[in-house]
Amino acid sequence: MTEPGDTGLTHVRPDGAAHMVDVSGKAVTKRVAVAAGVVETTPEVIALLVDGALPKGEALGVARVAGILGAKQTPLLVPLCHPIPITGVDVDLVAEGTEVRITASVKTTGVTGVEMEALTAVSVAALTVYDMIKGVDRAAVIRDLRVLEKSGGRSGEWVRDA
Amino acid sequence: MTEPGDTGLTHVRPDGAAHMVDVSGKAVTKRVAVAAGVVETTPEVIALLVDGALPKGEALGVARVAGILGAKQTPLLVPLCHPIPITGVDVDLVAEGTEVRITASVKTTGVTGVEMEALTAVSVAALTVYDMIKGVDRAAVIRDLRVLEKSGGRSGEWVRDA
Amino acid sequence: MTEPGDTGLTHVRPDGAAHMVDVSGKAVTKRVAVAAGVVETTPEVIALLVDGALPKGEALGVARVAGILGAKQTPLLVPLCHPIPITGVDVDLVAEGTEVRITASVKTTGVTGVEMEALTAVSVAALTVYDMIKGVDRAAVIRDLRVLEKSGGRSGEWVRDA
Amino acid sequence: MTEPGDTGLTHVRPDGAAHMVDVSGKAVTKRVAVAAGVVETTPEVIALLVDGALPKGEALGVARVAGILGAKQTPLLVPLCHPIPITGVDVDLVAEGTEVRITASVKTTGVTGVEMEALTAVSVAALTVYDMIKGVDRAAVIRDLRVLEKSGGRSGEWVRDA
Amino acid sequence: MTEPGDTGLTHVRPDGAAHMVDVSGKAVTKRVAVAAGVVETTPEVIALLVDGALPKGEALGVARVAGILGAKQTPLLVPLCHPIPITGVDVDLVAEGTEVRITASVKTTGVTGVEMEALTAVSVAALTVYDMIKGVDRAAVIRDLRVLEKSGGRSGEWVRDA
Amino acid sequence: MTEPGDTGLTHVRPDGAAHMVDVSGKAVTKRVAVAAGVVETTPEVIALLVDGALPKGEALGVARVAGILGAKQTPLLVPLCHPIPITGVDVDLVAEGTEVRITASVKTTGVTGVEMEALTAVSVAALTVYDMIKGVDRAAVIRDLRVLEKSGGRSGEWVRDA
Repeated sequence: MTEPGDTGLTHVRPDGAAHMVDVSGKAVTKRVAVAAGVVETTPEVIALLVDGALPKGEALGVARVAGILGAKQTPLLVPLCHPIPITGVDVDLVAEGTEVRITASVKTTGVTGVEMEALTAVSVAALTVYDMIKGVDRAAVIRDLRVLEKSGGRSGEWVRDA
Repeated sequence: MTEPGDTGLTHVRPDGAAHMVDVSGKAVTKRVAVAAGVVETTPEVIALLVDGALPKGEALGVARVAGILGAKQTPLLVPLCHPIPITGVDVDLVAEGTEVRITASVKTTGVTGVEMEALTAVSVAALTVYDMIKGVDRAAVIRDLRVLEKSGGRSGEWVRDA
Repeated sequence: MTEPGDTGLTHVRPDGAAHMVDVSGKAVTKRVAVAAGVVETTPEVIALLVDGALPKGEALGVARVAGILGAKQTPLLVPLCHPIPITGVDVDLVAEGTEVRITASVKTTGVTGVEMEALTAVSVAALTVYDMIKGVDRAAVIRDLRVLEKSGGRSGEWVRDA
Repeated sequence: MTEPGDTGLTHVRPDGAAHMVDVSGKAVTKRVAVAAGVVETTPEVIALLVDGALPKGEALGVARVAGILGAKQTPLLVPLCHPIPITGVDVDLVAEGTEVRITASVKTTGVTGVEMEALTAVSVAALTVYDMIKGVDRAAVIRDLRVLEKSGGRSGEWVRDA
Repeated sequence: MTEPGDTGLTHVRPDGAAHMVDVSGKAVTKRVAVAAGVVETTPEVIALLVDGALPKGEALGVARVAGILGAKQTPLLVPLCHPIPITGVDVDLVAEGTEVRITASVKTTGVTGVEMEALTAVSVAALTVYDMIKGVDRAAVIRDLRVLEKSGGRSGEWVRDA
Repeated sequence: MTEPGDTGLTHVRPDGAAHMVDVSGKAVTKRVAVAAGVVETTPEVIALLVDGALPKGEALGVARVAGILGAKQTPLLVPLCHPIPITGVDVDLVAEGTEVRITASVKTTGVTGVEMEALTAVSVAALTVYDMIKGVDRAAVIRDLRVLEKSGGRSGEWVRDA
C-alpha cells in the first residue's frame, strides 16, 4: 500500500481537507524514533541548573517527567496524529556550556511511527526548562528541534545526516 | 514583593525542591506575551502548503487551531506553570521561502505572565506543521522558539533585542 | 466597546483567520445560560431507563455526571472558546414517552457568556444516554440541541421564542 | 459470546450498577461507523461562512479539526466508553441553504464499534460551528445527530433506514 | 526476559533516571487487577448517603462514574505508567457502619498489568465521596488503598494475604 | 449566605440529584489547604528510594511533579468540584523507616476551598510512589489520606485534632 504523505502532505486529502489518514491496513511492527533539541541560555544559568545548591537532577528531573507525560499527550495536542500505545520513553537532558541538550527516544508496537511523540516529548521538556529559567534568562531560545532517527514500518531505518 | 526567580530558578525552593511558587500576593493586571518560532523545510514543501491544489489556509489553519488549543493546555503540560484565565490568543503562520514562521500573541488579566502560553502555542503549531509535512520532508527542523516581548506585571515592558 | 460577533462571525478576524477574540476589556458580571436537547428513542427503551429493575436514577445519573464534567471540558473541546471559571452547573434529565429531555444550566462570574458550556453539558449527557441505549436502539437520534436563555453581560437577558 | 446490550442497556449490570462492560473476549476486527448531524441557522449566516470575505474553509476547517480531536477525547467524555485505537477520521462539513451538514466517518481495528467516536466528532464540530456563529444567530439549533451506518464486529453491517 | 522492577525500582534506569520502561517485548495476555480502599466517616454521614431523602445510589453512583473515568486517566496522572487499552472496569461502593468500602476491578488484554488503573479508580472514587461529604465531615479519612489481587502476565496469579 | 453542605451532602440538591453547587455569591478570599497521606512499604524499599545508587530525589521528585500536576487536574477528576485558579502548590515527601510521608499545601484566591486539590495532589503523588515500588513491594498500602488544615472562606481556620 501507499503510505500517507508519499505524494504530498500527510493528513491532507486530495480535495484539500485535513483528515486523520486511515492506517488500518498498515502492519503492526516495532517502531522507534529519536528526537532532539536544545535550550540555549547562559553559562550562569547552566551553573544554577547543575552545580548550585540544588539537589542535582531535581530541576532537570522535572523537565524529564514533563517530557514523558507530554509524549502521552501527543494525539490530544497534534490534531491529525493517531493515538498509539507507547511502550517506552526515555528523555535525557545534559546541561553543559550554554546549553541544555535534550534527547527523547520513544518506542511502540503499532501501525504508525512515533516521531511526533518523540518531538513532543522534547518540546515539552524544553518548555519546562524555559519555565524554570525564565526568571533569570527570559531571552533563552529553544532551537534545533528535529528527528534524529526512526526505525520500523514500511520505510525502514532512517538516520539524519550529520 | 519579590517576584519568583529574581534570585534564581523560577519554581525551585531554597531547599532545591520544585514547587508551584505562590503568586497569591501578585497584582492582577493586563498582560500580553508574544512568542515566535520557525519550521525550516524546503521550497517544494512550502509550495505544497501555499500554492498547490489545497484550499489556501486549510493546512496552516489546522496548525493555527492546534496552537490556540495548545495555549489552553499549558498548565497541564508544563508542571510548575500556574493555571490562568487566557483572555485572547492569536496565532499567525506565514509560509515563504524555506520557512513557516509562526507567531503567537496571548493575553490575560491575571497574576502571572503568559509567555509560557505563547511559547506553547507556537510549539504545538510547529509540531502540527511538522506532522503534516513529515511525509515529504522528515528532516524539517523547528528552530528559534523564543519570547519576542511581554508586558504587564511588576517587570513591565520587555522587548527582545533584535 | 463592541462585542465580538456583532458584525460577523465570532472568533474570526477581519483577515479571515480564526482566533480567540480578546475579551480582556469586558466586564466581569454574573452570567447564566440554559440549554436543552432531546434524545429520541422508543417507549420500550424509556421503560428500561426508568421503570425496570434498575435503581431509578443510576442510568440517568451517569449521564448527569458526564454532562457536568463535559461543561468543564468545554474550552479544551471548542477551540476558540475562552476558559472561564464555572461557578455552578445543573443537568436535569426527564425520561418520558419516547424522549429523554435534557436541560443544563451553567453559571459563572466572568467576562464571557456560558452558553457553550451549557450546550456542551447537554451534548455530552445526550451522547452518554445514547451510549447506554445503543445496544437496544441504535437508531436513536439526538435533536433540538439549543440555547433556551442567557443573562448577564452587555447583551443582557435573552429568552428563546417559544 | 453475547454482546453487551443485547438484552438491555449497554453498560448496566444485572444489579443495575453502571460499569464499563468487559470486552476482552470480543474479536479484533476492522470497524467503521458514520454519523451525521445538522446545524440549522439562517441563509445570511451560511453566506458568511462560505461566500464572504473569509478564506473559504477557515471557519469550517476549525470545526473539522475540533471534530477530529473530539473523536479522540470520546472515552474521557463518555464515561462507560472503552478507549480504542482510532485508525482514521474524516469530518466533512457542507454549508448550504440554512444548514451546515456535518458527517464524520471513524475507523478502528479493535474490539468495539466506533459509533460513539463518530457521534462525538459530529457533536464537537457542531458545537464549534455554533460557537463561531452565535454572535450573529444565537437561536441556531443542532439537530438530527445520529448514526448513519456501522460495519465490523459480531453484528455486521447496519445501515440506517432512509 | 526480565520484568522491570525485579531487581529494583520500577521505572528507574540503572543510572538513576526515571523513564517509562520498554515493554515492547512483553507478551499480550489477559490481565485483571482488583484494588480496594475505605473512606472512614461517621454513622450519621453513612445514613445520609444511603438512607436519607436521596434516591439511593445517586451519591455513590457519582463516585462510581468518577472512578471509572479515573481509571482511563491513569497514564496522564501517573507519569511513568504505560497507556493501555482497558477492556472493562467495575467500581463497587458499599456504605455501612462508619465506612464507604470501595473496590475496583480492571481488565485489559495488553502487555502490562492494570493494578495502577485499579488503584487510581479507587482513589478517584474515594476523593469524590470525600468531596460530597466534606460539608458534614471534613475529618473523614481515606485509608487502606491497596491491591487485592492481580492475574495475567509473567508473574501469574497474586492474591494479597488476608 | 449558607455554605453548601451545612445541612447535608455537598453537591446534592434537595431533590437528591447531584449538581455542581452555585458558588457565585461566595466571597473571593485567600484560601489554603494542607493534606497528607502515607505510603507504607518495607525498610528495604525505603532504602532503595533514598540511600541507593539513585540520585537522591529523582524517584521522589517524580512523585512530587505528579502531585503538582494532579492538583491542577482536580476538577476534571472529581465531578462536582469547581474549577479554581490555584496560585501555589507545595508537595513534600519524606521517606523514613517503612513510610513515605506525603504532604501537599495548596493556595488560591478564590470562592471555594482547596482541600480537594490538596487531597488530589497527595493521592496522585502516592499512586506514583506505588507505581515505582510495585516491582519490589506490590503489597504496599496507601493510608491516612486526610486534610490537616484549611483556612480562608466563611468557615475560617480549621485544624485537625492531633
